[in-house]
Amino acid sequence: MQNNNSRELTIHIEALTLNAIIGLLDFERINNQKIIIDARIHYQYTPNNFINYADIIQQIEKLIVEKKYILLEDALLDIEENLLFIYPQIIEFELKISKPEIIDNATVALSLHIFNSKR
Amino acid sequence: MQNNNSRELTIHIEALTLNAIIGLLDFERINNQKIIIDARIHYQYTPNNFINYADIIQQIEKLIVEKKYILLEDALLDIEENLLFIYPQIIEFELKISKPEIIDNATVALSLHIFNSKR
Amino acid sequence: MQNNNSRELTIHIEALTLNAIIGLLDFERINNQKIIIDARIHYQYTPNNFINYADIIQQIEKLIVEKKYILLEDALLDIEENLLFIYPQIIEFELKISKPEIIDNATVALSLHIFNSKR
Amino acid sequence: MQNNNSRELTIHIEALTLNAIIGLLDFERINNQKIIIDARIHYQYTPNNFINYADIIQQIEKLIVEKKYILLEDALLDIEENLLFIYPQIIEFELKISKPEIIDNATVALSLHIFNSKR
Repeated sequence: MQNNNSRELTIHIEALTLNAIIGLLDFERINNQKIIIDARIHYQYTPNNFINYADIIQQIEKLIVEKKYILLEDALLDIEENLLFIYPQIIEFELKISKPEIIDNATVALSLHIFNSKR
Repeated sequence: MQNNNSRELTIHIEALTLNAIIGLLDFERINNQKIIIDARIHYQYTPNNFINYADIIQQIEKLIVEKKYILLEDALLDIEENLLFIYPQIIEFELKISKPEIIDNATVALSLHIFNSKR
Repeated sequence: MQNNNSRELTIHIEALTLNAIIGLLDFERINNQKIIIDARIHYQYTPNNFINYADIIQQIEKLIVEKKYILLEDALLDIEENLLFIYPQIIEFELKISKPEIIDNATVALSLHIFNSKR
Repeated sequence: MQNNNSRELTIHIEALTLNAIIGLLDFERINNQKIIIDARIHYQYTPNNFINYADIIQQIEKLIVEKKYILLEDALLDIEENLLFIYPQIIEFELKISKPEIIDNATVALSLHIFNSKR
């Protein structure tokens, strides 16, 4: 929420689809599985602190692929920490990782939603 | 809502699709119908009280299939009671049961949304 | 929002699809057009004041088809008035009427969201 | 939010699909790309200040096509300024511009959400 003079904007990254090693189960450590990432990044915009959505996507992809997280919990918290460090202008941050194929008759996901307390 | 130090996370179970006896009408007591369940479970995460999404799904499926609820109202309240008992770390809980096939030209659903008052 | 002891529930009517005379333009007064209605009805549930989703749908359909509203504004306000009269146990009510075919490259809709001040 | 006597309504423009020059990259300045616009316009309705959804769509389309914005940030802020000037009855305004084709494995979007401080 903001008044007309503030310039808070929100970047949306929707259905970012990756194949990665992620999860606790034996077969999840051996085989890539499809995961879907959604992020909502609410930030203070000024021409000086422009956030490039392509850079954010690259950061998330790199972390997911390289870290081969065992828990979705760890993935969420680590991505959060990295992005808040790189982009201190973030005000509010929501991140969701879905596993659409791990359960036959459902999609499961884990998300976090934080307000940047360092601002 | 949380600050950077808290570790509140949210499990999402989306479009969990079951065939079950549920409903008040005569034909609903005889024939399985397709129902779709969506749940959002906001909880306090620590490595000690990890919640496994597969366990939650199993609990919900078992209740729906075995109890053959007559009212969606009863189904929601009973599943709520069971899950809050098993998982006291739940902070907030949303559960929705949809009947996509009971009305020709619409999907109908019933949902509840509670904050865990026992915490 | 509620505590564990309250029994507030929400009925969802999603993508209720009708063909009806609705709208201001000449061709809208002559030809049926497809409209889609979504409703969210938050109410106080007790076994005594059970709300049947089929009844709600029937009420909405009857109003839309018979009244042939000229303005979506009138449709929303009239349906609201009727449902709050029939169901005083409604706490909060959201209603949206979409016209998916009136604009070539978009779907347009109008909605209202009210809290029942008579309770 | 409102009581039963207030007549606040919300116009939804969903998935307004345009081909336009928009963006910072060299190929984005030469080739049209598909963009999708979603708007939610919450306003004070009286029969005197009726807002026509077709007019809003026309305003947005004209601005996007003619201004060939370099930044999504500029597009959002300029459309906001124009619509609030034309429609002072707007109470709250949300606008989102999505680029579904700029990133291979995701949809990216930018949005703003404002409350009209001039009212």
